[in-house]
Amino acid sequence: MSSALEQLRERLSKIKDLENASAILEWDQETHMPAAGVEARSRQVSTLRQMAHELFCEDTTADLLAKAKPENDLDKDLLRVVKHDFDHATRLPADLVGEFSRVTSMAREGWKEGKANNDFSAFEPHLAAVLDCNLRKAEALGYEDEPYDALLDEFEPGMKTSEVTSVFEALRKDLVDLVGQIAKEPVIDESILTRYYPEKAQWDLGVRVMSEIGYDFDRGRQDRSAHPFSTTFSVTDSRVTTHLNKHHFNPAFFGSLHEAGHAMYEQGVDPALDGTPLQDGTSLGMHESQSRLWENLVGRSRPFWDHYFPLVQRYFPAALSGVSEGEFYRAVNAVRPSLIRIEADEVTYNLHIMARFELERAMLSGEVKPAQLPEAWNARMRDYLGVAPDTDSEGCLQDIHWSLGAFGYFPTYALGNLMSAQLWSAMERDLGSLEDLVANGEFSPLLGWLRQNVHRHGRRKTATQILEATYGSGLDAGPWMAYARKKFGDLYDVAA
Amino acid sequence: MSSALEQLRERLSKIKDLENASAILEWDQETHMPAAGVEARSRQVSTLRQMAHELFCEDTTADLLAKAKPENDLDKDLLRVVKHDFDHATRLPADLVGEFSRVTSMAREGWKEGKANNDFSAFEPHLAAVLDCNLRKAEALGYEDEPYDALLDEFEPGMKTSEVTSVFEALRKDLVDLVGQIAKEPVIDESILTRYYPEKAQWDLGVRVMSEIGYDFDRGRQDRSAHPFSTTFSVTDSRVTTHLNKHHFNPAFFGSLHEAGHAMYEQGVDPALDGTPLQDGTSLGMHESQSRLWENLVGRSRPFWDHYFPLVQRYFPAALSGVSEGEFYRAVNAVRPSLIRIEADEVTYNLHIMARFELERAMLSGEVKPAQLPEAWNARMRDYLGVAPDTDSEGCLQDIHWSLGAFGYFPTYALGNLMSAQLWSAMERDLGSLEDLVANGEFSPLLGWLRQNVHRHGRRKTATQILEATYGSGLDAGPWMAYARKKFGDLYDVAA
Repeated sequence: MSSALEQLRERLSKIKDLENASAILEWDQETHMPAAGVEARSRQVSTLRQMAHELFCEDTTADLLAKAKPENDLDKDLLRVVKHDFDHATRLPADLVGEFSRVTSMAREGWKEGKANNDFSAFEPHLAAVLDCNLRKAEALGYEDEPYDALLDEFEPGMKTSEVTSVFEALRKDLVDLVGQIAKEPVIDESILTRYYPEKAQWDLGVRVMSEIGYDFDRGRQDRSAHPFSTTFSVTDSRVTTHLNKHHFNPAFFGSLHEAGHAMYEQGVDPALDGTPLQDGTSLGMHESQSRLWENLVGRSRPFWDHYFPLVQRYFPAALSGVSEGEFYRAVNAVRPSLIRIEADEVTYNLHIMARFELERAMLSGEVKPAQLPEAWNARMRDYLGVAPDTDSEGCLQDIHWSLGAFGYFPTYALGNLMSAQLWSAMERDLGSLEDLVANGEFSPLLGWLRQNVHRHGRRKTATQILEATYGSGLDAGPWMAYARKKFGDLYDVAA
Repeated sequence: MSSALEQLRERLSKIKDLENASAILEWDQETHMPAAGVEARSRQVSTLRQMAHELFCEDTTADLLAKAKPENDLDKDLLRVVKHDFDHATRLPADLVGEFSRVTSMAREGWKEGKANNDFSAFEPHLAAVLDCNLRKAEALGYEDEPYDALLDEFEPGMKTSEVTSVFEALRKDLVDLVGQIAKEPVIDESILTRYYPEKAQWDLGVRVMSEIGYDFDRGRQDRSAHPFSTTFSVTDSRVTTHLNKHHFNPAFFGSLHEAGHAMYEQGVDPALDGTPLQDGTSLGMHESQSRLWENLVGRSRPFWDHYFPLVQRYFPAALSGVSEGEFYRAVNAVRPSLIRIEADEVTYNLHIMARFELERAMLSGEVKPAQLPEAWNARMRDYLGVAPDTDSEGCLQDIHWSLGAFGYFPTYALGNLMSAQLWSAMERDLGSLEDLVANGEFSPLLGWLRQNVHRHGRRKTATQILEATYGSGLDAGPWMAYARKKFGDLYDVAA
C-alpha cells in the first residue's frame, strides 16, 4: 500500500494532466481549429476542467492532505500550496459558483450591448450583480482586512490590498507628475513604426530574437492567433502565439518578447515540479514581471537597439532605410497619454491599472455605486492622464474583464512592472552592468539569473519571498520609478 | 431525478469527450509538438485514456445499461453498441491487460532488433508470447467457431472468420492468376512519377482536389506529419495529415485522397450522434472502403484523369510537359509485384493482406509454429506474387503490427477494398454512369450517396448491414474482382 503522500501525488498528477490537456485543447482552439469545431470543443474543455475540479474537491483529497507526511522541503511546499488551493476550491458553495456563472454570462451580453451602443445603462444592473457575487465570494473565501484581499489572493497569492494600496499611492503621485511634464514636451514622431513591415520578415525576425534572448524552440513553438498569448503544457512544452500587423512594427515584435518572457518563465521551472501543482509560475504579478522585463527593460532599452537596430534594418530595408537608431529608439518609447489601456505606453500603462484598482475597491466598498462608475472613471482619466473619453465605450466599458467577474486581477499588471524593476536592480547588483551585456547581445547571464532566482522555484516560493530573497524586501515601487524617471527624463529632456 | 437513459448518456458523453481530447493530444504530438514534449505528453494521453476506460468499466455503467429504457430506434442502437463495448471492455481480466502490455512492449524491442539485424531469432520468442496473449485474450472475449473470431471482432464487429476465409479463398485464385498474367507483359514505365514535384504545388493541388471531391475544410484541416493519418474530434472537426516527397508524385496526392476519404466518412456522420459512442465509422473495413473508394475507384480511374490531368500538368509544368494523359494514367496504375506491402499497387496489395491473414490464423491454431514463420512467409510470397525476400527483414519482419499484438487487424485492409467495389456497384445502380460524373468533376452525387447510405449511420449499422441494404448481400469479392479484371485487363492487354 502506497503512503498517503504517494497517493496524493498520484491524484494531483492526474488532475494536472487533465488541466494541461484542457490547455492543449484551448491552444488548438485559438490557433488551428476549424471554426465549426467550437461547440464540440467547448463541451470537451468543460468536461475536462470539471473532472479536474471534481477530482480535486473530493473528500479523499482532504483525507490524504491530512494524513500525508512530508519527507523533505519539497513535500512541505507541495502540501502548503495544495492546502491553499484546496481551501480555495472547496470554500465556494456550489450555488454561488452556479450563480457566478449565470450572472457573468448575462453580464457579458449586457457589456457587449452597452459597449456597442455606448449605453452604460445596459451594463449597469449586471455590474451591480457581478459586484454582489464578488462580495459573496470574498465572504466565502474569507479575508482579514477587506473583501478585496480575498479576490486579489486568487491572482497574487499572499499579497495584501493594503500593501498594494500604499505602494500605488506613492507611485501615482510621481507618475502623474512625470506624465504631466512629458505632456508639455514636443510629441515624438512614431510614424516610422506604421510603415509597411512584411509579415514574413516580422515572423523571421521575431523567431530569431526570441531564440537569441533564450526562448527554447526545442521545448516550445510559435503560432498565429487573433490575440497573442502564451500557454504551457509541461516544462518541456511551453508555447507562444503572435499576431502580425503588416502596417505596424510593434505588436508582433514587442508582443513576441513579452510572450517569450512568460514562456521562458515556464520553461525555467525545475523539471522535478513538472506535472505537479507546483509547476506553474507563482503569481500573475511575478509572471508579468518576466514578460515586462524582456519586453521593456531589455527590449525597449537603448543598449538593446544599439545591438539590434542594424539587424532589424536589414530585415526591413524599405521601411527603415535612412532611419537612425536614435529615431527608432525614441519612436518605440514614445509616451502618449491615451484612453486605451491595451495600447498604452510604458509610462502611462500603470496609471490605467491604478485607476481600475481604485475603482474596483471603491465599488466593492460601496463608495462608488455602479451608476457613478462613468463619472468616477472619467475623473480619474482626466486627473491621471489629462485626457477623458467622449463615450463610455471608450471609457469604463472598454475592457471585458469586469463583465467576466474578474475583480482583483487588474493590479497584477502594474505589480509585474514594479517587480520587474526590483528584479532588475537585484540582477544588476549580482551581475554588474546589464547595459553592457544587453548591448553585446549576451542574454544568457540574465536568463541564467532569472532561472536560478525566480523560474526554478515554480510555486514553491511566493512573489514576495522571491523579492525578499533577491531584492531584499517585498513590493517596492522605488526601482521602477527611478528607472522611468531616468529613461523618460532623458528621452524627453525633463527633470522628472 | 433524470432517467437511467439520461444518466447513461451523460456518462457516455463525458467518456467520449475524454477520448476525443486524447485524440487532439495525439494529433498535436504528430503534427506540431516540440520533440522534447513527448514524455509529458505520453503521460497526459495515458491519464485521459485510462480515466475514460475506468469511467466506462465502473459498475454504474452496467447498472444504467440494465435499467435504461429505450424510447426510440436511436436509443436501441445506442444501447446495443454500448453493451457490446461494455462486454468487450470488462471481459478482459486486469492481469491479462497488464501482461499484454508488458509482452508487447518487449516484443516491440525484439522486433526492432530482429529487423535491424535481419535476425528472426531475436523476435521469435516474443512472437510466441504475443500469440499466447492473443489466445488468452480470445478465450476471455469468447467466440463461437475459432479464436480468430474474437480478435477480428475488435476491428470488424460482427464479421466471422469463416466468412472472410471463404471470400478470400476464391479471390486469391483469381488474383494470383491475374498477377501471373500481368507479370508476363511489358513493365509500365513509372519514371514520370519520380521527377521533381515542388512541395508547395503538391500541397496546393492536394488541398484543391480534396475540396473538390467534398472534404469540408470548414470542418477540418490538413497538416504535415511523418506518416499520413486522419483523426476526428467531432463531426465538425475531422482532420487529415500528409507527407510530401518532392521526388515522388504519388504519396501526397493519393495519400490525400485516401485520408480525405476517411475524414469525409467522419464528417458525414449524423450530427445527432456527435459526442456519443455512435459517432465513429462502424468498422475498420468500412472505413477503409471509404478511403480506397476515393483513392482508387475514383482517383486512379481513367475518367478522373480525363478531368484532372490538364490541371495537374499546369501545377507541374516542368515534370509533366510533353507527358500524355495516357502515359500518366498507366504510370499511376502500374502493377509491380514487390516485397513491401506499404508500397504495393492496387492489384497485389490484397495478396499481401491475404498472406498475413492466413499466417495469423495458422499461427493461432498452432499449424505454423513461430520458428516456421519465415519459411511459411516466403513460400506465400513466391506462390502469390512470384517474388521472395532475400532477408527476413524484408519478409516476415517488415511490419511492426504483430509485435504490437495486433492480430485480426490486417484483413480489414482487403475487406475495405472489396467493400468499396460493392458500394460502387450499388451506387452505379442508383446513380447511373459514375464514369460520366467523375469525368465531369461532379463528385457531389457520389458523396451524397455515401453520406445517405453509409456515413450518416455512424456505428448504428454494421458494415454487413450497410452492404446488405445497399449492395443486396454481405461481403462479396465479385465486384472488386470484376473491376480489377476489367481495369487491369485493359491496361495490360490481358484476357484476365
